[in-house]
Amino acid sequence: MSAAPVVDLNSDVGESFGRWRLGDDEAVLALVTSANVACGFHAGDPSTLRRCCELAAERGVTVGAQVGYRDLPGFGRRFVDCSVPELVDDVIYQVGALDAMARTAGTRVAYVKPHGALYHATVEHVGHARAVVEATVAYDRSLPVVGLPGSQLLALAEAAGLRPVREAFADRGYRPDGTLVPRSQPGALLEDPAEVAERVLRLVTTGELEAVDGSAVTVGAESVCLHGDTPDAVAMGRAVRAALGDAGVEVRAFV
Amino acid sequence: MSAAPVVDLNSDVGESFGRWRLGDDEAVLALVTSANVACGFHAGDPSTLRRCCELAAERGVTVGAQVGYRDLPGFGRRFVDCSVPELVDDVIYQVGALDAMARTAGTRVAYVKPHGALYHATVEHVGHARAVVEATVAYDRSLPVVGLPGSQLLALAEAAGLRPVREAFADRGYRPDGTLVPRSQPGALLEDPAEVAERVLRLVTTGELEAVDGSAVTVGAESVCLHGDTPDAVAMGRAVRAALGDAGVEVRAFV
Amino acid sequence: MSAAPVVDLNSDVGESFGRWRLGDDEAVLALVTSANVACGFHAGDPSTLRRCCELAAERGVTVGAQVGYRDLPGFGRRFVDCSVPELVDDVIYQVGALDAMARTAGTRVAYVKPHGALYHATVEHVGHARAVVEATVAYDRSLPVVGLPGSQLLALAEAAGLRPVREAFADRGYRPDGTLVPRSQPGALLEDPAEVAERVLRLVTTGELEAVDGSAVTVGAESVCLHGDTPDAVAMGRAVRAALGDAGVEVRAFV
Amino acid sequence: MSAAPVVDLNSDVGESFGRWRLGDDEAVLALVTSANVACGFHAGDPSTLRRCCELAAERGVTVGAQVGYRDLPGFGRRFVDCSVPELVDDVIYQVGALDAMARTAGTRVAYVKPHGALYHATVEHVGHARAVVEATVAYDRSLPVVGLPGSQLLALAEAAGLRPVREAFADRGYRPDGTLVPRSQPGALLEDPAEVAERVLRLVTTGELEAVDGSAVTVGAESVCLHGDTPDAVAMGRAVRAALGDAGVEVRAFV
Repeated sequence: MSAAPVVDLNSDVGESFGRWRLGDDEAVLALVTSANVACGFHAGDPSTLRRCCELAAERGVTVGAQVGYRDLPGFGRRFVDCSVPELVDDVIYQVGALDAMARTAGTRVAYVKPHGALYHATVEHVGHARAVVEATVAYDRSLPVVGLPGSQLLALAEAAGLRPVREAFADRGYRPDGTLVPRSQPGALLEDPAEVAERVLRLVTTGELEAVDGSAVTVGAESVCLHGDTPDAVAMGRAVRAALGDAGVEVRAFV
Repeated sequence: MSAAPVVDLNSDVGESFGRWRLGDDEAVLALVTSANVACGFHAGDPSTLRRCCELAAERGVTVGAQVGYRDLPGFGRRFVDCSVPELVDDVIYQVGALDAMARTAGTRVAYVKPHGALYHATVEHVGHARAVVEATVAYDRSLPVVGLPGSQLLALAEAAGLRPVREAFADRGYRPDGTLVPRSQPGALLEDPAEVAERVLRLVTTGELEAVDGSAVTVGAESVCLHGDTPDAVAMGRAVRAALGDAGVEVRAFV
Repeated sequence: MSAAPVVDLNSDVGESFGRWRLGDDEAVLALVTSANVACGFHAGDPSTLRRCCELAAERGVTVGAQVGYRDLPGFGRRFVDCSVPELVDDVIYQVGALDAMARTAGTRVAYVKPHGALYHATVEHVGHARAVVEATVAYDRSLPVVGLPGSQLLALAEAAGLRPVREAFADRGYRPDGTLVPRSQPGALLEDPAEVAERVLRLVTTGELEAVDGSAVTVGAESVCLHGDTPDAVAMGRAVRAALGDAGVEVRAFV
Repeated sequence: MSAAPVVDLNSDVGESFGRWRLGDDEAVLALVTSANVACGFHAGDPSTLRRCCELAAERGVTVGAQVGYRDLPGFGRRFVDCSVPELVDDVIYQVGALDAMARTAGTRVAYVKPHGALYHATVEHVGHARAVVEATVAYDRSLPVVGLPGSQLLALAEAAGLRPVREAFADRGYRPDGTLVPRSQPGALLEDPAEVAERVLRLVTTGELEAVDGSAVTVGAESVCLHGDTPDAVAMGRAVRAALGDAGVEVRAFV
């Protein structure tokens, strides 16, 4: 008799900035088990971060540091060719700042996940992947690092003694080799909540997804990322959460 | 038989930003016992903060969080009429970020001191003084707060159960009532290292300074602030440190 | 036989920033005759400004420079105690930057209006009012300045040979002396589109508004400001525009 | 009988920011004929820009817009992978802002030169080179563009009908193919003022430089760039200017 399947759901929150609101943090925090909270360098003013941490603490959602390039005008979505040492320090600064907001809210930063262009860079850019790992080791080596299966980030994290956490994307198309369909190509983004929910359920229960060419692809993932800033993000998250619940899948933070 | 007199010397460091260098942190850290390290909102990039914390740790200098308004273009020297809740969160964020750099360097943030316009505001602005106190209480109520004797900041800190640390300024003129001569008036700034050294020595050994009108004014202070960003700052600091050493005054961090 | 009454309608646009959207610029630009376009210091990235200027040019809407304090985190809504010379230069910089975007779009900056805390400061703060006037004179003395009747800003503008343009607020309550009811007090904000439309019509045709105590107050205004960033802003603007049209009032830019 | 040789000397100025001073703008402006004034995105607050433009106007130095990536913490020295449209708008914004400061000072922006990482990117990055060219065409197609001989920037500028201005670097080592020795390699930087002066004189009078391997390399350049922010920048500039003067070379702005 096998144990019930378990998965973590994560999503980005805390990406408002001053007068500018983005996403429905309260609704998202009712759906996920891990919250990637922005840290102020690509989004997130201190009061937004604190409120997110308070909501997460109330709901028992785990807080992660969603670290990014220092680029508010680009929302961290533009690669910035910073040096490894300055990126190390930028990441430590961000994690520490968010951790202060988290502790004030009665919780703690429990993992690190890069955002946007930094996330994509750390798939192959050894220097920037190493910077995120070094910063995490320097700050607190008990913190897991979340990333793409097969990425430099997870390989270097594991080599450094950190716990690597592989994630899959609920609404992204996959190629037969397990990599994501680039956003510029057809099939990159799934928009139907029912289809996405079914897909996540299959992934969690079988470890497989249907690739863009119809073949089955094995994707090992401890956590599934739900996007939080699209108009239908909340509807999609609810569909996923409901489908998992109906199927008896336990949704639980990985840490 | 009385104990040898003791005093702390503090100075601002870590105020470089990216390509822009300001002050000679290494020289200043060889002179003081407490370093008010900028936290990134008015000055100080993460790599500068980390290097300062490393130098401070090596030399046994205590690290304090020099928190300020979020105003890089104004170097934190312009009053910003932010709300109390946003200032509370801005201060927590800054202290946490610096504390991360400090811990990475093997030390800790051990006190809080407002910078520039925030320092001056907290003398009388109850809301902003309260914000600094609330933030400190929320982050770590064991951290002392450094400020001007008689300020709202120190009164509210004490009322909140924080340790208030009174400081005097080595190179500022005082009025007979113990307040500072405004910078726009004659006698506001002392520039002769020998005179400043003698003045600090008198203050430490007798608790008195000569006011701008020649009268003696009593100024209780546990710490003496040396300015770090003027051309002669290091020369002045050396003169003060030498004078105290020659007189057998122990120079020691207040925490 | 008197001429048909004429009024200008103005509103803030261009206040998005990078990933963060604010207001429905396209809808607002279909309603107003003068667009106060943000200049990048409190809101507005260059691409947003350019797009706004292009839309304004297409629709024949006059472009004004909505200058503010350099404060993205506070959206320019916090007083910043900058010096007069630096504010002069900050305003020239903003007007010039927006004018470049405007000229590229086939139009020009045709007036200056302060935003947020700077708008409120220039009612009584002589230094900051003078800074806006000096900057406008230095950049182009043919540009009118929009402000509150009775403000230092308009008085100093007129004294400097600039054209002062008085404005009224469509959805703000007035006190019997013609000043605005502070936002913290009852009656500060009107929310019913029909009521606001009727109010603006009365103002335009009679020069009078009903004050918060029911008395009639005379408010001379060449332009009426519609708020652009509230959820009902567009509905309110449409009601005002329709009421003016039905009554035969000509809606026309003041410049 | 040939005419006397002519050359332009250019240097970066206006790179201070708020409290942080960088370079000796006044001394540099006494040596060069073209001043690349920062525009606020990588360095330069509005008051610094205005003061630089005033000094340039007084001395008859031509003002150019030194446009860069929006990256104060990195001083524009880090490649930022922004999109072409946003870079076009960022450049227009910067040129317009500086032009406002220049006109206020009685002069005008008379050319465009990219700074730092943007300068280097536009050598080969077609998209970013095109963005600078498009922005210049949109703002004022009479403005020349300064860049490296053989760069995409100059090729695209010429194709778009802009005047391309080739420049050489006084204190950089060249490879036999006319490209610069990378900063990480020996011979990248020349530090002896006398040697640099002699080198510039040879370049101006013969069109040749000695490459790092001792061979002669032909470098066509209308302008020679002097670095402005190194400690010895002013000494080096004086040596170059004196050598050119002694040899009867006319130093004159290219526009």
